[in-house]
Amino acid sequence: MTFHAIIPAGGAGTRLWPLSRAGAPKFLADLTGSGRSLLQHTIDRLAPLTGGNITIVTGTRHVDAVAAQIGKLADGIIAEPSPRDSMAAIGLAAAVIHQRHGDVVVGSFAADHMIANDDAFRDAVTEAIAAAERGYVVTIGIAPDSPATGFGYIKAGQPLPDMEAARVEEFLEKPDADTAARYLASGKYVWNAGMFIAKTSVLLGALERYEPELYAGLVRLARDWDSDRRREVLEQVWPGLKKIAIDHAIAEPLARDGGMAVVAADMGWSDVGDYASLRDVIDDRADDTSGVVVNAAPGGSEQAVIGIESPGALVFTHSKPVAVLGIPDAVVVETADAILVTTRAQAQSVKTVVDALDATGLADLR
Amino acid sequence: MTFHAIIPAGGAGTRLWPLSRAGAPKFLADLTGSGRSLLQHTIDRLAPLTGGNITIVTGTRHVDAVAAQIGKLADGIIAEPSPRDSMAAIGLAAAVIHQRHGDVVVGSFAADHMIANDDAFRDAVTEAIAAAERGYVVTIGIAPDSPATGFGYIKAGQPLPDMEAARVEEFLEKPDADTAARYLASGKYVWNAGMFIAKTSVLLGALERYEPELYAGLVRLARDWDSDRRREVLEQVWPGLKKIAIDHAIAEPLARDGGMAVVAADMGWSDVGDYASLRDVIDDRADDTSGVVVNAAPGGSEQAVIGIESPGALVFTHSKPVAVLGIPDAVVVETADAILVTTRAQAQSVKTVVDALDATGLADLR
Repeated sequence: MTFHAIIPAGGAGTRLWPLSRAGAPKFLADLTGSGRSLLQHTIDRLAPLTGGNITIVTGTRHVDAVAAQIGKLADGIIAEPSPRDSMAAIGLAAAVIHQRHGDVVVGSFAADHMIANDDAFRDAVTEAIAAAERGYVVTIGIAPDSPATGFGYIKAGQPLPDMEAARVEEFLEKPDADTAARYLASGKYVWNAGMFIAKTSVLLGALERYEPELYAGLVRLARDWDSDRRREVLEQVWPGLKKIAIDHAIAEPLARDGGMAVVAADMGWSDVGDYASLRDVIDDRADDTSGVVVNAAPGGSEQAVIGIESPGALVFTHSKPVAVLGIPDAVVVETADAILVTTRAQAQSVKTVVDALDATGLADLR
Repeated sequence: MTFHAIIPAGGAGTRLWPLSRAGAPKFLADLTGSGRSLLQHTIDRLAPLTGGNITIVTGTRHVDAVAAQIGKLADGIIAEPSPRDSMAAIGLAAAVIHQRHGDVVVGSFAADHMIANDDAFRDAVTEAIAAAERGYVVTIGIAPDSPATGFGYIKAGQPLPDMEAARVEEFLEKPDADTAARYLASGKYVWNAGMFIAKTSVLLGALERYEPELYAGLVRLARDWDSDRRREVLEQVWPGLKKIAIDHAIAEPLARDGGMAVVAADMGWSDVGDYASLRDVIDDRADDTSGVVVNAAPGGSEQAVIGIESPGALVFTHSKPVAVLGIPDAVVVETADAILVTTRAQAQSVKTVVDALDATGLADLR
């Protein structure tokens, strides 16, 4: 059974402003100085598993930029007229793939996460595909290395016969610190990284069961997708589709019904959701003497940086040398049109800066 | 008796890097967004007292920039071939003025300090001129409002007959914190702001007594200053002149000999020596809601600034909007060619950044 990857590429990455913008989102950016964007890394990582069977679902405004980055893909790009959350995006891709290729295994992977260990990722996906072929919707859970409160958790139950994959007992919302510590200590919980692998027949069957109207709309779209009626049907159907995340639409009810499995993996995963996690991902590139990590901002160049008494600092340069003095864990980001100065401890609050742009006459920097 | 002002304009203002540079020093910069440089403010403040009798002493490399800022002055600019500390600079100006105008009262005032209350300043200078006419070398001492450890202190003794000016008992080096607190509590000590007012005959007489070789060199220079031999004598004499501050050369020994007087004044004086004192000077311009002071860096323009949870921050913009998040008392300075990020608490340490420029390949940013 061939394997097709679905990559929903959305989300402005607000907490990584000004590197990430609504019009130039995080998944299109090279945040680590590797020369490849997060989207390109995601495709590179999946290519050996899919043989090019990759479908990217993204907003209309990003289609050209995505196409410019990815080259030719067998299944190409699905353009969403408007954001309708992850179930519509992944469900439409799955329905179109099912229409074109019949019953195959699909896997959905975010375009803007980072994974340090590609081999561990591919081993986990391979195991997940095997479980998917037995009829489960399979998620890959990240073995936690800290009592993080920023992720949902998955409680693993009994292993499937002769497999590492286990049944999912429960999906759990982001916990408080005490609960997270208990999860970590028990060894039975993994982080929900939003990766889902299933046969198209199983995924669409679950959708039909739990969200029949959304299912009907997506099937109608898929049926006419490769015809000259695509635009017309999109205009009729898309705006009315229910906005719901795949976790709520399928994963949670299906777990209750015994149809979800989980493969736990330790692969150096990060959602790179904010400057704190970005700093962690590129920690090993810190300058030995000053403890400051320096990167070029997208479209800029790496400049000389002086870091004094500022260990743990992260600096993105665009065109000017930067000196950071006496601010441990400083975050300094220069782009073509803005400068952000904060600290790792404030990483979650960068959204408040973005919220303030309009009132400050800087709406075009969103 | 006419009054002539001498303005020594030197000093790179290292602790205000990158606003102040060796080649574009602090006294030439508009640091408060007033549209006037510190040098221009100094001249504006003195003009009502001097009627244009102002002599500026500055390095050869700054003569053109100074001339461009000040317009026509009666006594003009004295160019120092190399820095030889304040006694040579002020002594040469005094000797040249004495040669040209005979025995007049001169007053020396730094080019890079700020004074909020010009009337109080001029009242103090007027009182100092009166004391100078009685034969004293007179300094203006700043009534302290805090136990500062960054300034020298002057201990005032008995008032002169019928005057507010008092004899100086002693000049004291920068004190430790306990000593400074004791000074403040006693009410007898004022800060040494480096202002000296005296008749040229008295000033040069004191110099002859305490530093006869330096006196002889300066008199020789003054004699030929307005002749075609200036350059030749400068080349012969200047490099051999003793490097010594006017405080050590004249003020301290003359105080011991009973010849120094002090006028205490409360005039909103600041040496604007670092970003902490600069922030204090322009504190009243803080944005009401965010507590952030914004200024245009020299050569740049004032940009939109977002300050969130960063009360007391000071931001100099050049060409990019700046957001500061969660760093109280942050100091963020963008210029045409550099960005500095630090805090007020680190104001004294900015010199360490300048010291690091060479090793970082940024020697041209000194």
